[in-house]
Amino acid sequence: MIVYLDNSASTKVDENVLKEMLPYFSEDYGNPGSMHSIGLKGSLALDFAREKVAKLLNADYREIIFTGSGSESINLAIKGVAQQKKKGHLITTSIEHHAVLDSFENLEKEGFETTIVDVEKNGIVDVNKIKDAIREDTILISVMYANNEIGSIQPIKEIAKIAKENKILFHVDACQAGNSENIDVKELGVDLMTLNGSKIHGPKGVGCLFKKRIVAIKPQILGGSQEFKLRSGTENVPLIIGFAKSLEIAQENKVEYKKHLTQLRDYFIEKLLKIPDTMLNGDDKKRLPNNINITFLNIEGEAILLMMDHVGICASSGSACTSKSLDPSHVILALGRPYEVAHGSIRFTMSKYTTKEELDHVIEKMPAIVKRLRDISPVHLTMEEIQNG
Amino acid sequence: MIVYLDNSASTKVDENVLKEMLPYFSEDYGNPGSMHSIGLKGSLALDFAREKVAKLLNADYREIIFTGSGSESINLAIKGVAQQKKKGHLITTSIEHHAVLDSFENLEKEGFETTIVDVEKNGIVDVNKIKDAIREDTILISVMYANNEIGSIQPIKEIAKIAKENKILFHVDACQAGNSENIDVKELGVDLMTLNGSKIHGPKGVGCLFKKRIVAIKPQILGGSQEFKLRSGTENVPLIIGFAKSLEIAQENKVEYKKHLTQLRDYFIEKLLKIPDTMLNGDDKKRLPNNINITFLNIEGEAILLMMDHVGICASSGSACTSKSLDPSHVILALGRPYEVAHGSIRFTMSKYTTKEELDHVIEKMPAIVKRLRDISPVHLTMEEIQNG
Repeated sequence: MIVYLDNSASTKVDENVLKEMLPYFSEDYGNPGSMHSIGLKGSLALDFAREKVAKLLNADYREIIFTGSGSESINLAIKGVAQQKKKGHLITTSIEHHAVLDSFENLEKEGFETTIVDVEKNGIVDVNKIKDAIREDTILISVMYANNEIGSIQPIKEIAKIAKENKILFHVDACQAGNSENIDVKELGVDLMTLNGSKIHGPKGVGCLFKKRIVAIKPQILGGSQEFKLRSGTENVPLIIGFAKSLEIAQENKVEYKKHLTQLRDYFIEKLLKIPDTMLNGDDKKRLPNNINITFLNIEGEAILLMMDHVGICASSGSACTSKSLDPSHVILALGRPYEVAHGSIRFTMSKYTTKEELDHVIEKMPAIVKRLRDISPVHLTMEEIQNG
Repeated sequence: MIVYLDNSASTKVDENVLKEMLPYFSEDYGNPGSMHSIGLKGSLALDFAREKVAKLLNADYREIIFTGSGSESINLAIKGVAQQKKKGHLITTSIEHHAVLDSFENLEKEGFETTIVDVEKNGIVDVNKIKDAIREDTILISVMYANNEIGSIQPIKEIAKIAKENKILFHVDACQAGNSENIDVKELGVDLMTLNGSKIHGPKGVGCLFKKRIVAIKPQILGGSQEFKLRSGTENVPLIIGFAKSLEIAQENKVEYKKHLTQLRDYFIEKLLKIPDTMLNGDDKKRLPNNINITFLNIEGEAILLMMDHVGICASSGSACTSKSLDPSHVILALGRPYEVAHGSIRFTMSKYTTKEELDHVIEKMPAIVKRLRDISPVHLTMEEIQNG
C-alpha cells in the first residue's frame, strides 16, 4: 500500500484534466499566434481556457496571465509591480514561500525597502501588524492565502481592506488555496493573485497571475509579446487547458472537498497526537482541510521520512522545494518553535483521492516508527521542557 | 487535405515523445524535490533526462538548465549574464528573435550599451562586422544559429572563435537548429546555448539553457532554488522528459532529415519561383533544410495566408509570435528589402512528416491564389523595379 500524503508538493493530474489536454500535443498542435486553421484551434482553445479561469475568479479575461509556474507568477507580480513603480516599500510575512521571500531580498538589493512581518504562534498574521508596517511609500503588500507547510489561512479580506484604504496594491499567493477556498477576486478585494496547476490536480509547469486591468507591471520574460505583452513565449496550450479544467473541477467541488477532508484531517490529527510528545503546528481551525503538520519530538525529519517511505507513506518535512536542504523549515521557526521542534516536523497533505483506510494505515504504522527513532535518538526532550522554553 | 507548413512556429509532438511523457502526469507525479519514493521516481527521471541532453550537447549534466520556454532561456542567458556583470556592452544582430532584441532593449534601459550588427542581403552576418563591433567592455555576443523566418545559418564556429579570442561570452539561440544542425557545444565553442521543445517535435512550454559551468549568471525566477539555484519552480518532469526524448530523436536522425528535406526544399523553391515576380528570401545554400521563404510581389501577406488556409495550406508571414501584428517582418526588412517585399513574404517550414505529395498540392494551388490576389491588388510593381530600387 502506497499512501501519498504530499499533495501540497505535487498532485496527481486528474484523468479528466489529462483527457482534455491530450489532443493539443499531437493533433491541434499549432502555435496560437499563427494565421491558419491549425493555429486557430489552439488559439480558440486558449481563449476558452482564459474565459473559464476568468469566470472562476470573477474577473475579466484580460486580467488572466498564464505563466510557467506559481513561482514565475509570484516573481512577475512582485518584481513586476516594484520595477514598474521604480521605488518604494513592500510588506510581506515571515512564512511566505521562497518565491516571495527571495523576490523581496532581490528587490532590497535593487534599492527597494521591505518589511517582513512576523506571524503569531498559530501561523496567522495579525492584521494590525500589517497595518503598523505601512509607510507613506508602501507600494505592495504580498501575503499568502494559505501556508504551504502548516496550512494556516490568512485573513485575506481584512488585509485587502487595509491595503485599499491605504492605496497599496495587494498580491495574494493562492497556490495552496485553489482546492478549498473562495478565489473570487472581487469578494476578496485583491489586486493580484497567483494560482498554480500542480497543486490542484492540474499539470506542473503552468501558473496563472490574476492582475487587475488598472495595475501596471513590468514584464519579466521579453520576446513575442504574448499574454497581453506581459509574458512572452509561445502559449502552452495543452497545459493551460489542463490548468483551466483542474481549477474548474476543484472549485465546483470545493464545498464537498472541504467538508470531507476536514473530517479526515481532524480524525487524523486526533489519532497522531495520541503518540507521546507530539504537537500540531499551525492553527487547528483556520487551516487548510488537507493539511496536518505534526512535530514528533526528539526525531530527525529526514530519518522519519525515510522510514515512513519504507512502509509506503509519502510525506514531507517542510516544503518540497527545499526538502533536500538540511536547514529546518523557516515556517516552523517563524512560529517561535525551537530548532529541535522544527527538525522533527512532518507535513501530511491529503487530496481528494485520500481515504480513511489510507490514514488508518499511517496511524497504525507511526507509533512504532516514532518509538524506534526515539530509541536511537541522542536528544531526549519532553514537551514540557519545550513549552517552558 | 491539410498541409501543415508552419513547423518553425510549432511542431506536432512526436507520438514516441508523448508516450514517454504520459506516465509522469497521473502516475509518477511526485515533486522531484520530495524525500519519498514517488518523488524519487520523478527525480531520477529528471536526472536521466538531464544526462541525455548533456550527452547530446557534449556537455556536463550540471551545465543543463531546464526552463519554461526558448524565450525564457534566452532572457536568462542574456539578462542573466549582463545583470551578473552589472555593466558593459553587448552585441547581437538585426535579425534575432524578439526575445533577444527585447532583452537587449531592456538592458539599454538598465544602463548597458548594445550594438545591433546588420546582416548581409542573404541574411547572414559578416563575421568581420561582429569583430568590428567589439569594444574593450564587451561582455556578451548573442547570435542565433539559424533564423526562424528565412532559415539562414550563421557562422557560429567563427563567431565563437572571435568571442574566445576577445574573452567575451557567446550565447547562441539554437531554437531552430535542433532538428538538423550540429549542437555539440565543445565543437561549436559556445558558452551558452538555448534550445526549445516545441520546434523539435517535443512539447511546448519547455526549453533548455546550456551554460558552461564557469559562467556566472543571475537567476531571473527566484524561489525554491531548483536547477542549480538558477531557475526556481517545481521541475516540470513530464515536459522535460519529452524535451530530452525529442532532442534525442532529432539528433539521431539529423543526417537523414537534412538530406531528405534539402531535396524537398530545393524542389519546392524551384517550382514556386516559376510563378512570375517571386523571389527567395535568405541564402539558397546556407539555410535550414526545412525553410522556404518566398516573396510574392504585389500581394498582401495576410490575404494570401487566409486564401491558402481555405485550401488547406498552413504557412505564415514572419514569425508566429508576431504574426497577428500588421507590421512587416523585421527580418525581411533587415535584408534591405523594401516594405512592399516584406509584406508579401510567406514562410513555408516543413517537418519530418512533410511529403512530396503535400508540396505538390501547394505547388498546384499557389499560381491561382497568387493570380487572383494580384488581380485585385492596387500595387503593380515588377521584380525589375524592386531590384533597381
